[in-house]
Amino acid sequence: MKKNYKMVLTYDGTNYSGWQKQKNARTVCAEVESALSTVARTSAELIGVSRTDAGVHAVNYVANVFLDTETPPEKLLCGTNALLPDDISLKSIEECDESFNARYDVKSKTYVYTIDNSPYGNVFLRKYAWRFKYNLDIEKMKRAAKYIEGTHDFSSFMSQGGSAKTFVRTIYECNVDKIDDTIKIYVCGDGFLYNMVRIITGTLVWAGLGKINPDSLPAIIKSKNRKNAGVTAPPEGLALYELKY
Amino acid sequence: MKKNYKMVLTYDGTNYSGWQKQKNARTVCAEVESALSTVARTSAELIGVSRTDAGVHAVNYVANVFLDTETPPEKLLCGTNALLPDDISLKSIEECDESFNARYDVKSKTYVYTIDNSPYGNVFLRKYAWRFKYNLDIEKMKRAAKYIEGTHDFSSFMSQGGSAKTFVRTIYECNVDKIDDTIKIYVCGDGFLYNMVRIITGTLVWAGLGKINPDSLPAIIKSKNRKNAGVTAPPEGLALYELKY
Repeated sequence: MKKNYKMVLTYDGTNYSGWQKQKNARTVCAEVESALSTVARTSAELIGVSRTDAGVHAVNYVANVFLDTETPPEKLLCGTNALLPDDISLKSIEECDESFNARYDVKSKTYVYTIDNSPYGNVFLRKYAWRFKYNLDIEKMKRAAKYIEGTHDFSSFMSQGGSAKTFVRTIYECNVDKIDDTIKIYVCGDGFLYNMVRIITGTLVWAGLGKINPDSLPAIIKSKNRKNAGVTAPPEGLALYELKY
Repeated sequence: MKKNYKMVLTYDGTNYSGWQKQKNARTVCAEVESALSTVARTSAELIGVSRTDAGVHAVNYVANVFLDTETPPEKLLCGTNALLPDDISLKSIEECDESFNARYDVKSKTYVYTIDNSPYGNVFLRKYAWRFKYNLDIEKMKRAAKYIEGTHDFSSFMSQGGSAKTFVRTIYECNVDKIDDTIKIYVCGDGFLYNMVRIITGTLVWAGLGKINPDSLPAIIKSKNRKNAGVTAPPEGLALYELKY
């Protein structure tokens, strides 16, 4: 009989074409399904909390899977990690209620975007941050970030090509922190449009550069026009950070 | 006329056969000399603070170089960084006293060794930490570390193949910290024997595992016998961290 399992994963997305399975591309989902089905000795089809783009990372990623297996969870954990490449790890796997759905039951997602603002380039962050050496006014970025919070139509912060049918999302928190030369932008919300965090980041960077006024954010949101927001920040700085169910 | 320049570098050692130039091997020193000499339009021969082994990193690495160049330091900095691969960065370069020698004038060096003690493997640390998932008693590691401090003959903590003529070194501090699943060992001293920090680390890990008693460290030191110390920890966890002149 099939039982439902909840899994928490972490991965370095550098060498993958994102989470979602695709023909002729290396994806995180396909790697995990391959390892898990070998250990469980049965097919494994994962339901992931969201697609992540090519090159985007996950500190925590939740998926669920129905398995007809006799293998206990602690052996699934250990065995799957033994088979996975070293840029994907399974942090936990446990039986859960059969109604649990990683994609539809998520209450909030937090992403973190990292900017390496050092003048020389932090070699240890080169695959995990946007190298951006120009001077950024962190107070202006913080002020702009506050306008992102709340329930808005985020059409201005969406790339073409997504599958969303409605464009209203609620952002619970949007915070900007700087420690030494590293800037982190945390965005927590009930859902996100295609490239939304990367466009929010690009817009906050524009505010930090003085290219736009932080107080123009409400007008940018209201315009529902992608052209008024900032650049789409590169994928390597983005990581799915925390999920609440 | 040649002037002396002091440089601070940082590098990810993963893809290099260490600092020191070698025939038929990619080294950090050769990469920096190549970039700098192109920008300075003159030959550049670096004097580095120490050799680092293949795969070892540097948060801060100091070198000096005599250059007969008209190019001002800020242009040397910017131009060299533009030519360097993205796993090496020049943090600063400035004229210094002609007597300054990066190798002989150093007063203390601090290395940091990172252990990923998570049960699943932290994907973001896989090139910057020793993946070691077995349970380590941090208090035992701290107690063992205190015996490393002081002036001792460290022959027990040296691999064959080094060029040292004397084996007495002074360790000013040896500290062990744990944050979440990441253990960091900081070792500050006036100098180090071949593989010394990696063998100290391996020995502290043995103490943490209960394979040796922390209070046996004085006897291990006194024996001057490599066989009594722990394993040589792998290079990817080691980074040169701070230098004082």
